[in-house]
Amino acid sequence: MSGATYRDAGVDIEAGNRAVRLMKAAVEATHGPAVLGGVGAFGGLFDLGGVLGRVARPVLVASTDGVGTKTRVAAAVGRWSSVGADLVNHCIDDILVQGARPLFFLDYVASARLQPEQIATIVGGVAAACGEAGIALLGGETAEMPGVYVPGEIDLCGTIVGIVDREQLVDGSRIEVGDFVLGLGSTGLHTNGYSLARRVVQGHDLEAARESLGGASLADALLAVHRSYAPDFERLRADGPDGDPVDVRGMVHVTGGGLIDNPPRVLPDGAAFWLDESRWIAPPIFDWLGREGGIARAEQRHAFNCGLGLLVVVPEHDADRALARIAARSGAPSAGVVGRIVARDGGAPVRFAADEASR
Amino acid sequence: MSGATYRDAGVDIEAGNRAVRLMKAAVEATHGPAVLGGVGAFGGLFDLGGVLGRVARPVLVASTDGVGTKTRVAAAVGRWSSVGADLVNHCIDDILVQGARPLFFLDYVASARLQPEQIATIVGGVAAACGEAGIALLGGETAEMPGVYVPGEIDLCGTIVGIVDREQLVDGSRIEVGDFVLGLGSTGLHTNGYSLARRVVQGHDLEAARESLGGASLADALLAVHRSYAPDFERLRADGPDGDPVDVRGMVHVTGGGLIDNPPRVLPDGAAFWLDESRWIAPPIFDWLGREGGIARAEQRHAFNCGLGLLVVVPEHDADRALARIAARSGAPSAGVVGRIVARDGGAPVRFAADEASR
Repeated sequence: MSGATYRDAGVDIEAGNRAVRLMKAAVEATHGPAVLGGVGAFGGLFDLGGVLGRVARPVLVASTDGVGTKTRVAAAVGRWSSVGADLVNHCIDDILVQGARPLFFLDYVASARLQPEQIATIVGGVAAACGEAGIALLGGETAEMPGVYVPGEIDLCGTIVGIVDREQLVDGSRIEVGDFVLGLGSTGLHTNGYSLARRVVQGHDLEAARESLGGASLADALLAVHRSYAPDFERLRADGPDGDPVDVRGMVHVTGGGLIDNPPRVLPDGAAFWLDESRWIAPPIFDWLGREGGIARAEQRHAFNCGLGLLVVVPEHDADRALARIAARSGAPSAGVVGRIVARDGGAPVRFAADEASR
Repeated sequence: MSGATYRDAGVDIEAGNRAVRLMKAAVEATHGPAVLGGVGAFGGLFDLGGVLGRVARPVLVASTDGVGTKTRVAAAVGRWSSVGADLVNHCIDDILVQGARPLFFLDYVASARLQPEQIATIVGGVAAACGEAGIALLGGETAEMPGVYVPGEIDLCGTIVGIVDREQLVDGSRIEVGDFVLGLGSTGLHTNGYSLARRVVQGHDLEAARESLGGASLADALLAVHRSYAPDFERLRADGPDGDPVDVRGMVHVTGGGLIDNPPRVLPDGAAFWLDESRWIAPPIFDWLGREGGIARAEQRHAFNCGLGLLVVVPEHDADRALARIAARSGAPSAGVVGRIVARDGGAPVRFAADEASR
C-alpha cells in the first residue's frame, strides 16, 4: 500500500529548495555589512548600528503591498522579469512619501504549483530592484498553495521597512492653502487599476506594436515598471547649489484609489487639492484604455494614477527650484506644476479644473 | 453607451473601504505610544525611542510568512476567527528562535472577491493576537484579485519585525555535542503540512466529534491555534529565583520541512540532532492522519511538526531548570527532554532513536 505523500498532495518541498538555491546569489548580493548571517535563518538580521548614528530620533516606517493583477498581464505574456521591480519600487514610494529612506525588504510569492525557474526570475527581479535602491532583500517566503490559486497565476507582495528622523517626517500637516502641487510622471499604470485595464484589453493582441502607443505593444505599456521616486526626493531634501533643502510639505503616492482617494490622505482640515489635467501629458496607454473601454473620466481618476505617480506639495516660492532639481538628473521623470492647494469650503477634497470649467 | 468600470471588472473599492472601517478599531487598539499617526497613512510609523534605551546594540529581525493552506480548512467550515492568530504566532516564533522580541506586524489578505465582514474577522484575529503579544499591528493590505484566486479561497501572510541586542542573538553557534534538546508541545499542525492533511481528510466529516481526537472534530483539531512560545522564552531568558537566565544555545521553530529540514538551520558543523520520539506525546491528530493516510513515518517527519512546535538546545546542567521554569506558567505547553546533540560523523543532521533501534 502506498500512503499519502506531500508531493502527491501538490506540494513539492524539493522544488521549493531548488527555487531557494536559484535565487540565493541574487538575494545575497543585496546584503551589505548591516545584514548579519545568511539566507536560511528563520528571520533576517539587520544591524541598526550603522544607521542610528545618522538619525537623531529614529522612527521606523513600514508598509506591505502587492502588485495587484499586474501579475496576470505578466502571466498572459510570460514575462516575469519586471514585476519584482514593480513591487519594490511601489513599496519604496509608499514610505518615501513620509520622508523615509528604505532599509530592507521582504517578499512573498505564492502560486498553485511552484515553478522554481519562474520564482527565481521573479525574486531575482525583486533582488535587482533592491540592489538598485541600495536596500537589503532581508527575507522572503515562497508558498505553494494548490487549490487557493488559479493554476498559472501567482500573487506577489512585499514589505518594506525604512527609517526617518522624527523631525524630518513628512505628514502633510504643514500644507497651506496656496501651496503648489508638483506632479511627477508615471511610466504607466504602475501597480493599480489592472483589473479594469485587463477587462478593456480583452480580445486585443497584447504583443502587437501599436502606433497609438508610440510603437509599443499593450504588454509593453501595461508592464512598464513602477517608477521609484527616491532619487528625486533625495535631490529635493539635500542641500543644493541653490540653497537649503526644498520645503516638501506633503507627498502623495498615487496608488490604489487613484487621484481621488490618495491626495486626501495628507491633507490638513480645510484644505483641498485643485488639479488641472491640462497641465500634464499622461503616457498614451491611459488614452487608449479610456477610449477603448469607454471609461468615464470620473472612473479613470478613481482607478488609475492618470499619468502622475507622485504629487509633491511645496510652497509657491520653492516650486521652480524643486522642478529644476528634479529635471537636472538624467532619467528623471517629467515634472511640472499640476495644481494648487485651495480652501476646501465644504467641497470635495480633490477638485479638477475641467469640472469647474464645464459647470 | 455604458463604459467599463472598476466594479464591473471585479474590484469593489467601496467594499475595500468598508473592510477598512470594520477593522479600524481593532487595529488601533494595538497601537501603543510607539505608534505615530493613525490608520490610513501610506506607511505605519513606529518610534524606536522607547526601545533603544533598553538595547545596547540593536539588530532588527524580520520575517515574512503565511499560514499555508490552513486557510482552506477555515474556508471549508467557514471559521475565520483563528487564522489571524495562527499567522501572528507563527511569525513571533520565527524571530523568537533568534532571541528577538517582536515590535510590530503587518498583514496581507487577498482573495478573488473581497467580503468585508470576512476580511474584518480575519484581520480582527490578527489584531487580537498582536494585542495579546503586546505588539502593534502597524499596517496591512487587503487585495482583491479576481482570476488569481480560486473563488471562496483566501491567502493570508504577514511580516513581523522585532529587535534583539546583538550580544543576545541566539544563532546556534555555541551548540555543543552533549547538549540537551528540549521539546515544547505544539497544539497540532500549527501552520504546516495542510496540503497533505487535507488530502487525507477528504471525504471525512470535518465537523463530527471524534473519540480518537478526544472528542474534538477534525476541524477543531486542524484549526487549533499555532502556539506562541514567547512567554516560555521570556521565562528562560529572565533572571529567576533559581539564578541567572538559562543558557539557551539554539532554538528551532518546527515549521515547513518539519523535523527534518528545520533543526539543521541552527547546527554548527559537526553536530547533529538525535531525537527520541518515545519521549513526547503528540496531539492525537497526528496519529489520526498517519493512520488514515497511511503516511510513512519519514514523510510525516518531513511534512509535520509531529507534536513539537519548538526545540530548545541547552547545556545538560540547565535542562531541569529550564523545564521547571516553563512548567511553572499556567497555560504552558508540555515540555520535556526529547533528545541530545550528538557528533554528526558524516550522518544525517537529524537522527531518530527509532531508526537506530531497528537497524
